[in-house]
This record gives sequence, C-alpha cells and structure tokens, in this order.
Amino acid sequence: MTSDASPRPLARAPRGFQDRRADALVAEREILGAVSRVYESYGFERLETGAFEYADALGTFLPDADRPNAGVFALQDGDEQWMALRYDLTAPLARFAAENWESLPKPFRRYAFGPVWRDEKPGPGRYREFLQCDADTVGSERPEADAEIIAMAVEGYAAAGLPRNAYALKINNRKLLNGVLTAAGVADPAQKLAVLRAVDKLDRLGTAGVTALLGAGRKDESGAFTKGAQLKSAAIDAVVAFVGAGAGTRTATLDRLANVIGGSAEGEEGLNDLARIGEALERLGIGEDQALFDPSVVRGLEYYTGAVFEAELTAQTLDERGETVRFGSIGGGGRYDDLVARFTGERTPATGFSFGVSRLAAALAASGAATARAARGPVVVIALEAERMGDYFALASELRAAGIAAEVYLGASGMRAQMKYADRRLSPAAIIMGGDEIAAGTVTIKDLDLGRALAAGIEGNKAWREDRPGQVTAPRADWVSAVRNIVEAAR
Amino acid sequence: MTSDASPRPLARAPRGFQDRRADALVAEREILGAVSRVYESYGFERLETGAFEYADALGTFLPDADRPNAGVFALQDGDEQWMALRYDLTAPLARFAAENWESLPKPFRRYAFGPVWRDEKPGPGRYREFLQCDADTVGSERPEADAEIIAMAVEGYAAAGLPRNAYALKINNRKLLNGVLTAAGVADPAQKLAVLRAVDKLDRLGTAGVTALLGAGRKDESGAFTKGAQLKSAAIDAVVAFVGAGAGTRTATLDRLANVIGGSAEGEEGLNDLARIGEALERLGIGEDQALFDPSVVRGLEYYTGAVFEAELTAQTLDERGETVRFGSIGGGGRYDDLVARFTGERTPATGFSFGVSRLAAALAASGAATARAARGPVVVIALEAERMGDYFALASELRAAGIAAEVYLGASGMRAQMKYADRRLSPAAIIMGGDEIAAGTVTIKDLDLGRALAAGIEGNKAWREDRPGQVTAPRADWVSAVRNIVEAAR
Repeated sequence: MTSDASPRPLARAPRGFQDRRADALVAEREILGAVSRVYESYGFERLETGAFEYADALGTFLPDADRPNAGVFALQDGDEQWMALRYDLTAPLARFAAENWESLPKPFRRYAFGPVWRDEKPGPGRYREFLQCDADTVGSERPEADAEIIAMAVEGYAAAGLPRNAYALKINNRKLLNGVLTAAGVADPAQKLAVLRAVDKLDRLGTAGVTALLGAGRKDESGAFTKGAQLKSAAIDAVVAFVGAGAGTRTATLDRLANVIGGSAEGEEGLNDLARIGEALERLGIGEDQALFDPSVVRGLEYYTGAVFEAELTAQTLDERGETVRFGSIGGGGRYDDLVARFTGERTPATGFSFGVSRLAAALAASGAATARAARGPVVVIALEAERMGDYFALASELRAAGIAAEVYLGASGMRAQMKYADRRLSPAAIIMGGDEIAAGTVTIKDLDLGRALAAGIEGNKAWREDRPGQVTAPRADWVSAVRNIVEAAR
Repeated sequence: MTSDASPRPLARAPRGFQDRRADALVAEREILGAVSRVYESYGFERLETGAFEYADALGTFLPDADRPNAGVFALQDGDEQWMALRYDLTAPLARFAAENWESLPKPFRRYAFGPVWRDEKPGPGRYREFLQCDADTVGSERPEADAEIIAMAVEGYAAAGLPRNAYALKINNRKLLNGVLTAAGVADPAQKLAVLRAVDKLDRLGTAGVTALLGAGRKDESGAFTKGAQLKSAAIDAVVAFVGAGAGTRTATLDRLANVIGGSAEGEEGLNDLARIGEALERLGIGEDQALFDPSVVRGLEYYTGAVFEAELTAQTLDERGETVRFGSIGGGGRYDDLVARFTGERTPATGFSFGVSRLAAALAASGAATARAARGPVVVIALEAERMGDYFALASELRAAGIAAEVYLGASGMRAQMKYADRRLSPAAIIMGGDEIAAGTVTIKDLDLGRALAAGIEGNKAWREDRPGQVTAPRADWVSAVRNIVEAAR
C-alpha cells in the first residue's frame, strides 16, 4: 500500500497507448473474426508467439530505422540478454520457422494476430501499440503462393465489409525495377537505393518531382535541396517509363511492362512471376480490376526480395471538420526470401500479407462502410428496496436464462439516477418491480429506445408509437416475451 | 540486413515465453469466448487498456513482491518516465476508472482479457507471459455485487466445460478474521500479518502446523525453525476454531461462524456481508454446494479488503509419468476498496474475479473435461504438374465456396511427400486430378482418416470400411458433395 505520506500518482495512460471501450473493440473483433475465417478456409494454421523476442533475433528490419533496435521497446533480461517487444508479426515467424523447421509440415502456412509495439513518437491517430493480422507461407517459391496470399487479402477485405471500390490492391515485383536498372547500366547499390527512394515519392511529388530526384536533385518549396540518384538521361527515361506502365487491368499492364523492362534476365524473371500470379488470381476468381499490377509500388525499404503488395484506401473520407483525410496504406506485404536464412544460413522462400487491423477499423468507420454501432447495454432491473435485491436478481436470472443480457442496478442511487444509468449504457429496457407490481403479480417494462427517440424529437409516426408504447405492464408469467419484443425491436 | 560478417543469431524464444500452435489456441479461444459470453450476459462491458502503465500507476501490489516494481518488466520511456508491462488486469482498471470516473456510468462493470507479464523465474508450466480474463464492478459496495461476480465465475467454469465436481469455489471475508483477532485482543499489524501467513499454510501443514505457527513457532523436517505469531493460547484457539468452521453448505458454515467470530463489530459486519452474498447466490441459482463459505481461504497477502474468492481444481490429475499433479488455483478475486483511492483519494468500492485462462485450459485437458482435439488441417489438393496449377486452384476455390477449408499443395515435392504433408496437417481428404481424371471429367478423393486408421491397425469393422472406401472417384459435377461426406465423417 502506498503510505499516506507518498503523493498520489496521476491516473493517466502512457503516451501513445490507448484505452479502448466496447464500441471500438466490437469493430476490431469482427474484423479479426472475418479475416481469420478467410485464412482458415485457405488452410492457414493459427500461431501465437510471445510478446518478446531476443533483440538479435528481431534484427534491424524495422522500416526506416537504421540503428539496431531503434524504434523498439527493449530491455535487458536478468541474464543480461537484450529482449525487445515484437514490432511486427513477421520477425517472430521467421524465428519460429527457423527454430522448428525440421518438425513443421512444409510449406508452413500460418496466420497470427495480436498487438505489435513501436517506440516511435506518438501523434493523432498514431499509437505505439496496434493490432496486426498476418498470413504467411514459408517454404514455397511458387508465384502461386503469392497469388493465394493476395486472394486472401481481397477476400479478407470483403469479409470485413470494405466495399470493393473503396480500396485498391496493388502488386509489383522488386525484380522488375532491378532488371530495368541493370539494363540501363546502373549497378551501384547506393544509387539503386536512391532510385527506390525517389520512386517511393511518386504519390507526393508526381512524375516531374521524381524525374528530378532520379537525376541531379530537387529543390522543394522551402528552398531545401535533395540530392538525386544521378542517373543519366536514358536511365531516367527507362525508370519513368517503367513506373508509368500501370494500366487498368493486370493483362494490359503485363503487355506494357514487356516493352519497358529492357530484356534483363532479372526483369524477365519478374515479368514471368507476375504473369503466373495473374493466371492464378484469375483461377481464384480475383477480378482483373480487383488486384492490379502497379510498377510504382515500392513498399518502403523493407526486406522484400520479390513480389510486393500494398492495399490503399481510395474512397475519399472526411474528418470531423469536413476535411479530406488521406488514409494511405491499410495493409501490405510481399515475398521475403532471406528472413529465415538469417538464422539457418539456408535460403527459405516466404511470402505474406499483413492487415493493419486498427487502421482498417478506422477506414471502415470513415468510409461509412461500417455503421458505427454503439455497443448496447443490458436490460437493467431497477433496484429500489434493499430487502428486495433477491427478487431483482431472480428477474435478471430469468432474462439471462432466456438469452437476454440483464443486470440488477447495484449502486446506491434512486430511481431517477438509475434510469439515467440505463440510458447511458444504451440499455434497450428497464424493469421495475415495486410494491404495486408485486401485489398485482406483474412487472413494468420501460422501452428506453422510445424514450430516447422522444427525447431526441424523433417521435416517429403515430402507428409506430401505438405499436411500441413506452411502458408495458406484463404478468409475471409472460413478462420475458414482452422484454424480448422490445430488445429485438432495439437491434 | 545483417552483413555476411555478423554471426547468425540463434533461433530461440526468450526463456519463459511460449510459442503456441493451433491446438492450444483453439482451447483458449473457446474458454475466452464462453467466459466473455457469460460476462456480457450480466451486462459487463469489454475494455482493453494498453500493455504498458506508468510504474507509479501500477504501484507495488504484485503478490509477494515488496520492492517497488519487483517482478515486472519495466523500462524508461524517452521522457525518462518509467513504464512497466501490466502484471494483472486489475491495476490498469483502477487507473482507467480513476482517470475517467466522472464520465463513466456508475457502477462501472467491465470485463477484459489479454496477456499479463511477470518478470519471474520461469519453470515447468510457469511462464512469464500468460492470459487472464477478468470481470470487475467498480462503484458498488453492496455484497450483492460480490455475489454476482461469484455467480459469473461459476457460470464461466460451466460454460468453459469444467465439470461441477472438478473444482471448488471458496468464499471468505477478510473482516471475519480481523474480527476474531480484535475480539481476542490482537491489534499489532505485524502480528496480524503473521497470523494471515500461518493460516495461508493450512493446506500444506495441517492444523497442528498452523497451531504451532500461531504460537511460538515451528521446526520443519529439515530442522529449520520458523518464528510464530506469538499468540496466546486463547487467541490460538479462537483462530483455529474460526479457520475450521467451514461446513458442506453455505448455511451451515454461517451458523458455525456465528459462534466463533467473538462478537466484534467488524466480525459481525463480515458475517452480515456473507449472509447477504449467500441470499443473492441462492436467488441467482448457485447451489449451496457450488460456491462454499470457507474461513480458511486467505488469498495471499494482496490488496483485498473484504470478500475473497478462490477457485481450486479438486479433481485428481495425473501427469505423463502417472504422478498426481496438484493444480491449485484456477482463478480468484475479491473486494478491493482502496485501489482507485490511490489515485483519487476517494474510497471507491470494487470487486472482481480473474480466470487464469492458460491454467484453466491446462486443467480442462488434465481433468479430461476437454477432449484434446487436434486442430484439423484443410482438404489438400495434390499438385503434380506445374502447368495445371490453375486447375488445382479452381478446385480449391470450389471447395471453399462450399464452406470447406482447402488448399493447393505449394511445395516442390512429389506425390508421396504431398500425401505425407496432408497427413501431418491432419487433413480429412486429399484431392487428385491427374491426366486420367481430366480425360474422364472426374476427380479422385482420398479419405485420409481411413488411411490413418488402417496405418494404426484400427481397421474397424468391415461394414464401416465398405461404407467409407479409402478412395472415391467422383464426376466433376458432383465431387464437392463427396468431399463433404468425408469431411463431415472426420469431424
């Protein structure tokens, strides 16, 4: 116990961490349930690893973090080994697969969901703990494994309730740009990285800005100068032609890409991989315009080695002030053939996709796809006389036995505060059993939705009000069905 | 990327952390689902707080840890505040309730589940990360709030599948022993603590051992001497009579307690609280022998201020070597009226119960209550010819569209290895579509459970084998229903 002399601690959550109540959690639970069912229907097995990994096992793969373990929550264990909270679900999978490779059925297909932690600067809508839901196939180098992952993403978004036209799923392959650069005589890794960084800014800077960054460099509006990749003009043209080769269907993009990848072996391989992904997607029923090939997708500077996938919300969404909100990525993934090899030394092909669950929930709400449903409270049995608590409990038990959530008010306040409590819980009904009711063998049932509608001035049409009077007195033998009618009307 | 010069990290989970695969996770998911449904039927709202709390908000309430923050995983945030991973779900609730008290409906009833972390020495079956599932009512001092929490625990165990006779739920009240000690003239806090510690050892040492520890002290088999509470003989008799007052029903125990609590005001209050809990439990349909009053329950040295609850597995369970395993506690809780006051300075009555989900899952498995069901794999479409991958994918899609989990084998191995893969996944069936089948417009379906039964020497009776031949060739128009028959028989 804190002694009376110690100051009282301030009650506040650590910065960047959220308390989430029923409304938010219901939406997340539905997304996780829908996506998990899709994953399981494709034969993916659930896996849950611990929150911590040894720091050396996590590696330095966190996007945009060059220092070892920058951006993660790390601490030293009792035996002086550094441990860190997982920053994604892929690094723990790579460790698990390497640790158990001999005994796993191969290819190993697993899905996982849970919080991940990043020690980054928190901001509006930017948390240091958030939920991911991933599926990965480890041990298959077939492009069809990528196609299947993409198909599950498309089905996952549909199952979660995101309309088909609210987002775009874009597919690219790292081998293509590598092939273009090889054909253009660019071999320096630093220069290649500068090209990737430039292409990654296409959304923000447009073709002219990217062209400048591929060449000498670019001065922004503030006058600051960013040095470019120093490509020669022919190489710049090749990259720009490649990046702009996307079309409205996978087949059309493949045709255009064949003309711009410049004939290198790696480029041809990337093109062949994409073509096989396209064929498999077709057989999996994923329409030409549902998952597109888009050569401009770079997907950060992460550990991907081949195919990359990115899902972006396209529907315009407005914030509370009516301003357009850019949501950006709501999921992504790709092929990473080297993560398991870090441990084993043996190349182990792998591919996966990660849903940003919290972002998807926010996107669903913002795009109007999910009706923001407030979590409904239970039926509240009003408790006015201490010596009748047993009777109140018996009423609540009767309701629960009939499958209706119910509670007895357990505070110390009077009738008015109890009704206000039931209203704040968004309860559909309140039950009153006072002396009159007991004498008459009845209970009184108040329809709280009607009360809310009246209070909000939405009186509805008269017929509805006659169908659903605000208050019903029902005999003890038949009261539960009267409550059920009100509860079902409130759904 | 790790450079080639760095040594390869060893693939291993941090000590005390588990990787859990589908079988274990299915059992946990079912427990969480069942218990959550009970909580929601009682009107409890789900809440999820972040993994971290500021260390000062967590306080020093971890059982058996006297140093501040001993036993928790703590780290210093960028702004130099100490944060720690939650060690239970109660401390974060107290912080949340204090932070949001004004805007919450009161009493505030919430349930929560998720991992908690303790930086303790790991051992067999003892992990540093485990799952809890709690319900608490904050803001009600009515004993009926305790009764409701107990009723939810009983219903929760039943919903999770634990047989009624496999465990005992015991209820006590801290006020009773305090009353006994007051009546016996014991007022020194250190002496009272020594009494609690002695009573807590009843299970292990029996009445004689506890009697010794209440008096001068006790020498154990190794010759080591533990100093006792130094009670006088009359006080020892009073405590022993109190601790032994438990009977087979709540009513009988109440009668016996009335004779031994010695007439102090605090003891009478505790007795009155218990009596009201008993009445409410009866009206909630919790049988006299389903949740017992037991004065010997101490529930550690935690923060409880009134009623305490403890659920223990009673069924004898055997480990792999046939030795009896003592499971001990599978859940517990009680009334803690001071946790929120740490923040606000205002006493806020609260009561709750916590299921140890991982322990309950282990208990269910060990007691035979849960049939250890291995997670079944999907139907596997055998992939033998690269140019037919599209056809295989179309077959898998047809099965999924019919609600049957299915996958195409995506590795690089031949027929034999693919059948072995399907067998290791515990798939109910494998689908073969080779040249013959395509020419004939059929698919071949292998019943893998039958294959397993034959391999295990369980050939079954002949009739069954004739009903379920090991292999079926079905026309493309009708093959899905043939697969469904096999999948349903395998359930």
